[in-house]
Amino acid sequence: MNYQQKRVILTGGLGFIGSNLAIRLVQLGARVTVVDSSRPGCGANPHNLAPIASNVRLIQADIGEAQEFRQELADCQVVFNLAGEVSHVHSMAFPERDLAINTAAQLRFLEVLRRERPGVRIVYAGTRQVYGIPRYLPVDEQHPVQPVDFNGVHKHAAATYHLMLTRLGQLDAVVLLLTNVYGPRMALRIPCQGVLSTFFRRALLKQDLEVYGGEQLRDPVYVDDAVEAFLLAGAADHLPSRTYNVGGPEGIPLREIAKVIAEAAGLRIVKRPFPSERKQIDIGSYVTDSRRLCRELGWSAQVPFATGVRRTLEWFRAEIRHYLDPARPTVCGMPEHAGKRRRLALIPA
Amino acid sequence: MNYQQKRVILTGGLGFIGSNLAIRLVQLGARVTVVDSSRPGCGANPHNLAPIASNVRLIQADIGEAQEFRQELADCQVVFNLAGEVSHVHSMAFPERDLAINTAAQLRFLEVLRRERPGVRIVYAGTRQVYGIPRYLPVDEQHPVQPVDFNGVHKHAAATYHLMLTRLGQLDAVVLLLTNVYGPRMALRIPCQGVLSTFFRRALLKQDLEVYGGEQLRDPVYVDDAVEAFLLAGAADHLPSRTYNVGGPEGIPLREIAKVIAEAAGLRIVKRPFPSERKQIDIGSYVTDSRRLCRELGWSAQVPFATGVRRTLEWFRAEIRHYLDPARPTVCGMPEHAGKRRRLALIPA
Repeated sequence: MNYQQKRVILTGGLGFIGSNLAIRLVQLGARVTVVDSSRPGCGANPHNLAPIASNVRLIQADIGEAQEFRQELADCQVVFNLAGEVSHVHSMAFPERDLAINTAAQLRFLEVLRRERPGVRIVYAGTRQVYGIPRYLPVDEQHPVQPVDFNGVHKHAAATYHLMLTRLGQLDAVVLLLTNVYGPRMALRIPCQGVLSTFFRRALLKQDLEVYGGEQLRDPVYVDDAVEAFLLAGAADHLPSRTYNVGGPEGIPLREIAKVIAEAAGLRIVKRPFPSERKQIDIGSYVTDSRRLCRELGWSAQVPFATGVRRTLEWFRAEIRHYLDPARPTVCGMPEHAGKRRRLALIPA
Repeated sequence: MNYQQKRVILTGGLGFIGSNLAIRLVQLGARVTVVDSSRPGCGANPHNLAPIASNVRLIQADIGEAQEFRQELADCQVVFNLAGEVSHVHSMAFPERDLAINTAAQLRFLEVLRRERPGVRIVYAGTRQVYGIPRYLPVDEQHPVQPVDFNGVHKHAAATYHLMLTRLGQLDAVVLLLTNVYGPRMALRIPCQGVLSTFFRRALLKQDLEVYGGEQLRDPVYVDDAVEAFLLAGAADHLPSRTYNVGGPEGIPLREIAKVIAEAAGLRIVKRPFPSERKQIDIGSYVTDSRRLCRELGWSAQVPFATGVRRTLEWFRAEIRHYLDPARPTVCGMPEHAGKRRRLALIPA
């Protein structure tokens, strides 16, 4: 896995996973160009790239305007495609916004990429949300696609673009389907980024953790492990498959996840009734079968959950002012979003 | 299956399958409101509804502007959702147009529908193209989704909207995945509507039939049989499944399909090399496994191919001036499309 002097394009590189990947790539000697629109609500944080600010090139652009940076695309050797909106809850309130960001912009990006740099390796950050409510556990790549929210539909369409264009010989794509990723640089200030983001935010603000349900299994993956999956997929000479699940080392009940975080932060857990707009798109228990990625690309989840939680809290404590403002509470509903607020039409009359 | 006095909304009702369905619904006593944008290139033909012109209400609107006819939606009992662009070839030349028509407009339509008429039965006209190159024959509903063109990606996303909103209890949807449908009212004037449309056009213009390849199996379904599938899906009290394949009574090599049509029209077959932009998105042999639809909803394909061909040619001979203009040849590339022609970027440099 040699990234020395490799010309890498990284979309969404100001975001949580993207910035961790950018830092690692720079450490490995790659020449990294980050493309990020800094669209409100999508998790970009300029501070994320502080450790490599002078070693990375930043293009502030939406990937849908790829014409603007087509020279850079024509010249690149690998693309890591992480731009997007990750919130399932936001997608239900603003489905057209989610379609524009997660599907239409991807289409325009790939249209330019396949013309400027046909056949290039591209690793797309997909989501396990496409599988919806699991029919069996752990969920492997054969599981039917049956999303329960617009984000899942739109991210699936974008993943399908990548695979379709690969079938046509115009791209050389790998789709990673990520489970709950956590770690340093999570977008804690942005609401509705998933349960782990909420838990860490509360823990860092010294608020007791609220748990809905609690029996549901999740298998959180530490961001360094997720980054390793991207690096392997971006560099593999031989790809037996095009889609790989990326999950954590263990399936843990949500109650236990909350407990580990609460205890590490010296806090308590409070059980709450499930809010209806979340219950609607909750998928119950989810555990990933990542064996294909282990077998075919030699990956494995290295960081146990308790270790990852400790590292995450330590990291954020030193950086807290860049990630949370106790004076400005984070409330779901995208207060930072400039667009018109549409009626939340989740529940039939 | 009682449609007497039922208030039905039919999107794409000026098109090929939609108009045949509208006529049948009126015969069954339904109160039919057709919504159609008459967008150039999408197959609308006002003459299609000539037999029921005084018995049907026509709303000339894009389904993406569903706010304009939300009263009608609020009041309806069944929706047949057939609006869309069907051309795989066009979707590769104009992918953003295809996304706008087949996904974004559907999203806006369903957003209004789920709010105005939550829980309504809706039957969506999907395509077997979502399966891509078959891994096995005949193709059943368990087959992986792996489209080879943008039309397949976008129609799949729209189908997924329907199923996702049904999972959330906001719609009561059935997705029909149709194979090659043929019969009276095909959009013969519009280019790139599939091989059967091309064969019938040439046959009616007394031009010899051109065959690319010829060994590929197809299972054409006569439009009356397809219409029957819509009627059954729209009226079924009990739906064991939400997705049904709809295929013809037999798998036939393309060469044989051409021969049957050519002989019925007194013409010959000419073998031609496969044009590269079609070879790219050709799926090889395809035969549908429709047994789920037969078993669960009591459907069966009634019309043998030779019979359907005879009926189709007879019908068109009497109506030819409404469907073909020998003085204006039909050439692929959407001459009727008002939008900017974009570079056909199918083949990597």
